Amino acid sequence: MNIINGNVTSPKGFKAAGNAVGIKKNKADGDNGLFESKKDMAIIVSEKPCTAAGCFTTNVVKAAPVLWDMKTVNNGIMGIVANSGNANACTGQQGIDDTEATAARLAELIGAKAENILVCSTGVIGVNLPMDTVLKGVESTYALVGDSYEKGLSAAEAIMTTDTRSKTAAVTVEIGGRTVTVSGMAKGSGMINPNMATMLCFITTDCAISKPLLDKALKSCVRDSFNMICVDGDMSTNDTVLCLANGMAGNTEITEENADFEEFRKALRYINRKLAIDCADDGEGATKLIEANVKGAANEEEARKIALSVVSSNLLKAAIFGEDANWGRVLCAMGYSGADFDPMAVTIEFRSDKGIIRLMDDGKPVVFDEEKAADILSEHKIFIDMYLSEGNGSATAWGCDLTYDYVKINGDYRS
Amino acid sequence: MNIINGNVTSPKGFKAAGNAVGIKKNKADGDNGLFESKKDMAIIVSEKPCTAAGCFTTNVVKAAPVLWDMKTVNNGIMGIVANSGNANACTGQQGIDDTEATAARLAELIGAKAENILVCSTGVIGVNLPMDTVLKGVESTYALVGDSYEKGLSAAEAIMTTDTRSKTAAVTVEIGGRTVTVSGMAKGSGMINPNMATMLCFITTDCAISKPLLDKALKSCVRDSFNMICVDGDMSTNDTVLCLANGMAGNTEITEENADFEEFRKALRYINRKLAIDCADDGEGATKLIEANVKGAANEEEARKIALSVVSSNLLKAAIFGEDANWGRVLCAMGYSGADFDPMAVTIEFRSDKGIIRLMDDGKPVVFDEEKAADILSEHKIFIDMYLSEGNGSATAWGCDLTYDYVKINGDYRS
Repeated sequence: MNIINGNVTSPKGFKAAGNAVGIKKNKADGDNGLFESKKDMAIIVSEKPCTAAGCFTTNVVKAAPVLWDMKTVNNGIMGIVANSGNANACTGQQGIDDTEATAARLAELIGAKAENILVCSTGVIGVNLPMDTVLKGVESTYALVGDSYEKGLSAAEAIMTTDTRSKTAAVTVEIGGRTVTVSGMAKGSGMINPNMATMLCFITTDCAISKPLLDKALKSCVRDSFNMICVDGDMSTNDTVLCLANGMAGNTEITEENADFEEFRKALRYINRKLAIDCADDGEGATKLIEANVKGAANEEEARKIALSVVSSNLLKAAIFGEDANWGRVLCAMGYSGADFDPMAVTIEFRSDKGIIRLMDDGKPVVFDEEKAADILSEHKIFIDMYLSEGNGSATAWGCDLTYDYVKINGDYRS
Repeated sequence: MNIINGNVTSPKGFKAAGNAVGIKKNKADGDNGLFESKKDMAIIVSEKPCTAAGCFTTNVVKAAPVLWDMKTVNNGIMGIVANSGNANACTGQQGIDDTEATAARLAELIGAKAENILVCSTGVIGVNLPMDTVLKGVESTYALVGDSYEKGLSAAEAIMTTDTRSKTAAVTVEIGGRTVTVSGMAKGSGMINPNMATMLCFITTDCAISKPLLDKALKSCVRDSFNMICVDGDMSTNDTVLCLANGMAGNTEITEENADFEEFRKALRYINRKLAIDCADDGEGATKLIEANVKGAANEEEARKIALSVVSSNLLKAAIFGEDANWGRVLCAMGYSGADFDPMAVTIEFRSDKGIIRLMDDGKPVVFDEEKAADILSEHKIFIDMYLSEGNGSATAWGCDLTYDYVKINGDYRS
């Protein structure tokens, strides 16, 4: 597997564009910089129809585009149209009609049907889309699509909300003597939680792979990536991961779980994991990335619960922001995770590029060097390693610290 | 039922004291004021042995005093000793020994056995208690006990950590021709979450009531009070609600679920509810109290899930801090609560002393007057009313907003 400098336009046959069409409020003179980039529409299209797979929010309240994509993803897909600035969530029947009209507009432009188009929205909840703006925007954005690196980057920028940077990744792998490219773009920031959040991720690949195996590969990769990150415990109404495979790499179609499948899944896992960690790292207001590693839980499920509980604890997240080695909050969050374990047999360490420090040893608090701990916690990426004595279950989750800026951003997001 | 100006010393036969014994760091010259009150030990004793009941944290990691109280609460109880500044949690076998030694010291002073004494601790996790200080403190604090209002108030102040004010309540009810007093004190602040938190509540009463009925009454009252508040989603290792009943009011002992029992439970419910709401209201950094009311859920359990999910949402809490009528976050939090309902049949209103405003009507967003909404949200107490169309389940939960001060307090709590 080769990591390359690419994005959704890297695989053969994909074009994209990002554009400012006027859905986001004009904040050119604003003082908070939230909408510094006013790009608010992205389109990705494929030259040939794609096999598609999707993972969606488990929130009972699903935004209109999520409901649309959940049925549409099983068709041959020609493109994705995504807007930022308005989530088209909690918008009643009008929202559902608006999603279909958006799909129909792009379909018309490329000579397909609405049901061949996926739609995603992210931004404010509970406000109907300005459909004149959206439909004109689809037209002007489609006019810009191209297969260059810059076009792909522009699309990644156009789905940002409170993200501070765009998120892209790309790799190539050799499958059946052909070079297959897998690439993706994502946006995250707030409402990031297990089982996804206001998180959108679009993956493109020129791999030839059957629908059942694409479904299977995507599901397993999302489970260990986007479903293991937490920014604030809020699970959004709009979370979506979509993967489009147009088969243009020319490899023999993957139709069984052979070596080719594993190679493809390895590439897909890398893309998912890279983009998920980028989302945690760029959580709203975040200054630090937290990686929680659990080893020795009763089983994998228990390990996942513990790891997620730790990266979700407001108290721990605030302590990490304050660079305070408050390991008691780690044990506390482990304790209310729902997993069962013996607290008297737990070892906890904090780690960063500056070193490693043991804070609890087999259930007993360790008298530790506060200066060394502060030095370790001064780094950007903080590892929290937890060792239990229940079995062989292990898991990793990612999160970020809780900061003044999180409160600031979310205290007045709509205005 | 009469609400009186009282506290734990109000019922017959109870004495108390609060004292500064040196467990909390000296912050007389500090600049953050967290430990402005340096009182750190409270003792409550009863003239006659009490029937006792307790509700405890469900965290797998239970502090040493919780483990002690869970078994001891079934004995005849003569007193409670509580310290703030150190939670004696995650402290290994030493912590367990320290709790017993603390109980033994108070027992010795009053001529009882260690197993007749309940012990509570709150504060920093993972540091062993300074036992010389604690044992001398038990002696000096016990020397101060008295039955005055001021003594009771002093005890309530001594269990505070980051609380900004002490929390007490008292009522009298007539039971079998006798005046029965029920009163309590509590501390809350951070780590407040369903199923309790770093929350301690001590209730005293002179009611004569059997152990099984005291257990039953307390459990049902805690369920609708302390188990329905959330400050930050972190469930502590130390949560404890204790109720001591010494029978000195002289009423015929309540041994069945008759009218006397209901009268007693009404009083107990008032005390629990008042103190729980005080804890939510005084959450770390809080500027607003949020009351979430759910009506029309499929059943009570579903209503409870929804109400708690809403008061627990970081995004909603930050929006309330910003006085932003971001009702979409309400629906979103309802949606990930785990309850099942039709989002297209939900009505949401925000309410305060300034008025009421409907934001979603039967699944459709309402175009509302932002100025009026801002005016309503400018109040201290904000009601969020949610109407569903699933059944007759209703529930209420309380929480507070998420503020800069929460991050500040928790970014550097230990120092």
